[in-house]
Amino acid sequence: MAGVITLITDFGNSDWYVACMKGVILSREASCTIVDITNEIPPGGLFNAAWVLRQSFHYFPTGTVHLVVVDPEVGTSRAALAARAGGFFFVGPDNGVLSLALGLYPEIEVRSIQNQEIMLKPLSPTFHGRDVFAPTAAYLAKGGKFSSLGPEWSNWVRLQEPLVRLGEGFLEGRVVYVDRFGNGITNIAEGELRTLPSTGGLKVLVGDLLTLDSLKKTYAEALPGEPLALIGSSGFLEIAVRGASAKEKLNLQVGETSVVVQSLT
Amino acid sequence: MAGVITLITDFGNSDWYVACMKGVILSREASCTIVDITNEIPPGGLFNAAWVLRQSFHYFPTGTVHLVVVDPEVGTSRAALAARAGGFFFVGPDNGVLSLALGLYPEIEVRSIQNQEIMLKPLSPTFHGRDVFAPTAAYLAKGGKFSSLGPEWSNWVRLQEPLVRLGEGFLEGRVVYVDRFGNGITNIAEGELRTLPSTGGLKVLVGDLLTLDSLKKTYAEALPGEPLALIGSSGFLEIAVRGASAKEKLNLQVGETSVVVQSLT
Amino acid sequence: MAGVITLITDFGNSDWYVACMKGVILSREASCTIVDITNEIPPGGLFNAAWVLRQSFHYFPTGTVHLVVVDPEVGTSRAALAARAGGFFFVGPDNGVLSLALGLYPEIEVRSIQNQEIMLKPLSPTFHGRDVFAPTAAYLAKGGKFSSLGPEWSNWVRLQEPLVRLGEGFLEGRVVYVDRFGNGITNIAEGELRTLPSTGGLKVLVGDLLTLDSLKKTYAEALPGEPLALIGSSGFLEIAVRGASAKEKLNLQVGETSVVVQSLT
Repeated sequence: MAGVITLITDFGNSDWYVACMKGVILSREASCTIVDITNEIPPGGLFNAAWVLRQSFHYFPTGTVHLVVVDPEVGTSRAALAARAGGFFFVGPDNGVLSLALGLYPEIEVRSIQNQEIMLKPLSPTFHGRDVFAPTAAYLAKGGKFSSLGPEWSNWVRLQEPLVRLGEGFLEGRVVYVDRFGNGITNIAEGELRTLPSTGGLKVLVGDLLTLDSLKKTYAEALPGEPLALIGSSGFLEIAVRGASAKEKLNLQVGETSVVVQSLT
Repeated sequence: MAGVITLITDFGNSDWYVACMKGVILSREASCTIVDITNEIPPGGLFNAAWVLRQSFHYFPTGTVHLVVVDPEVGTSRAALAARAGGFFFVGPDNGVLSLALGLYPEIEVRSIQNQEIMLKPLSPTFHGRDVFAPTAAYLAKGGKFSSLGPEWSNWVRLQEPLVRLGEGFLEGRVVYVDRFGNGITNIAEGELRTLPSTGGLKVLVGDLLTLDSLKKTYAEALPGEPLALIGSSGFLEIAVRGASAKEKLNLQVGETSVVVQSLT
Repeated sequence: MAGVITLITDFGNSDWYVACMKGVILSREASCTIVDITNEIPPGGLFNAAWVLRQSFHYFPTGTVHLVVVDPEVGTSRAALAARAGGFFFVGPDNGVLSLALGLYPEIEVRSIQNQEIMLKPLSPTFHGRDVFAPTAAYLAKGGKFSSLGPEWSNWVRLQEPLVRLGEGFLEGRVVYVDRFGNGITNIAEGELRTLPSTGGLKVLVGDLLTLDSLKKTYAEALPGEPLALIGSSGFLEIAVRGASAKEKLNLQVGETSVVVQSLT
């Protein structure tokens, strides 16, 4: 049996684009297990796709091929990448969508996919998900030789991530993702938070208006309708409202709303 | 080959939560077949999830593991359940989401999942779908011993279902679910309906305003735009409008709109 | 291992209808690989479903069973079809949903599904997707005899497709589908376009207001916000706006907006 291939795309679930990719994969290797991580990335949402990949890829079995197709520059000179890191394979355009995951590993091998024998022919200039990336994923899932894909490619694109600022007794990050529940997930990782002195407790400032005077462990520790902050299941600080959408109640703006965690002394 | 695992969640299809569960399952048992029943349960929609489960679980092969994660109280003292009934397994939080399905069987075995060896470590306080329920489902799908999951648990939570009132020559129920087409599905089962004397025919009153003077067999028996009542494909009385949304046209309110079926004499 | 079964339905992804079909399929043949092409066809959208099928079916492995259930006349006298064409199987109601795909093949075999032994019992009058079409698909996927399904059926329903008009040095078609990105896909095929004299170039008129003076190869050849025309990945002329929705920016209307391609001399 061949391995698992996951998909992250901005193709949505209404049209035939994802199905074409799956058809190509199954035509190349019928025994693949294909898992949609999501096809609902906002059109062209590079950071969004990169973030979803980073939060999910490591839960899959070793050897899984993670295929990410958010590709507004398809058909231009942007490279097509295949990478090997942490026991996983990653396939997608060289526009940063893979970079948050790849950035977690000091030792990675990245290649530019140039092996025409693997690609579909004729090659469409507007759908490399189907014609380049899906066949490459199938090739890797059935054990194809990584080095045959093309030359090494060291200068791959890194997405600019909003940075967490570390000050005297405080950390400042921001909301980088809002999930289905309206929870605002920040770029402040649990590990960073642990570096703050916390013997006197912590307070959390969300935007200009809201101050929370502790971290909760669970959503249910807040009262219905009450805002809270907690370390979410992916290990990042998260702003929520119990039983409601924090995005709506607190007017969270992805990429904009600042979140400050401050040591109390 | 391991068995089938189905998913019913309120995680949506845009984020990575469902994917994490699938990754965990496939990491534990690569040969599982995973089927999404739906991930579009409204956030926290316990009745909705319980209803969807009840309408679908019995169409799957014997031995299927049905995994339901709508879990607003995650991380509190609510128990984590695994149940065996009718040849199926059911896994989910002890908040009623499993209860409409379990309630169909007089003989069931319910256990509280406490076996730490099966769970992911460290255990997140906010995502037991990934850390407790998915590993349990994989364990059962590959033939793990049911009794090793934890102690028997008899006092599991039953959802309050809106009851059907049986009067002199009439039944009164209500709309409990609206589907994608806008059809209003009631809690009046075909079997209950058959207990009404119907030699003189039946009439159906929807809310305060609409009276239908017969049951149709198919949607196409009504004229385009005409309201109708029929026994839907799941065996419950259903209010529809041909070629349109009954919810919109008739202003159906889930849990509120009453539906009365009356014998004509 | 049994083959691949694909699904195109208007059941959406929120209710249990698709899951019931999958449960029936897996109960009949556990080793099927089921791929959702889409379940988000607009309710009753026959042309939409037929178009999605035509754009995707041929990317799947030979022997794939394509199951299409958009079936507003379910329970009436409309026939239930199974067809064999181009190495694929097609299953669905006789209302035209299969016809754009079947129309591509001069030699096809179409049968009316009447073999009661294959169907679920009791047969619901409102859900043949579950009770007739899913069992038929499973039967074919595991190698069941095609001719045992029922009698040959030559007079199957063909959808009326909007025609492309070929004039003196021009082609006139229309927008027949808008995808997730808001791209307007026309019924003008690449092959038809190639019949136009193009030595002097081509111009494209979209509706009454917009004229584009060339075809692009990729979306990225246009400036952000600029409208463009190109041959899309499925081989049809497509109207897009770079980085935005052409449907919104250009007010494209499916089935109405005319698109004219004219030779320049």
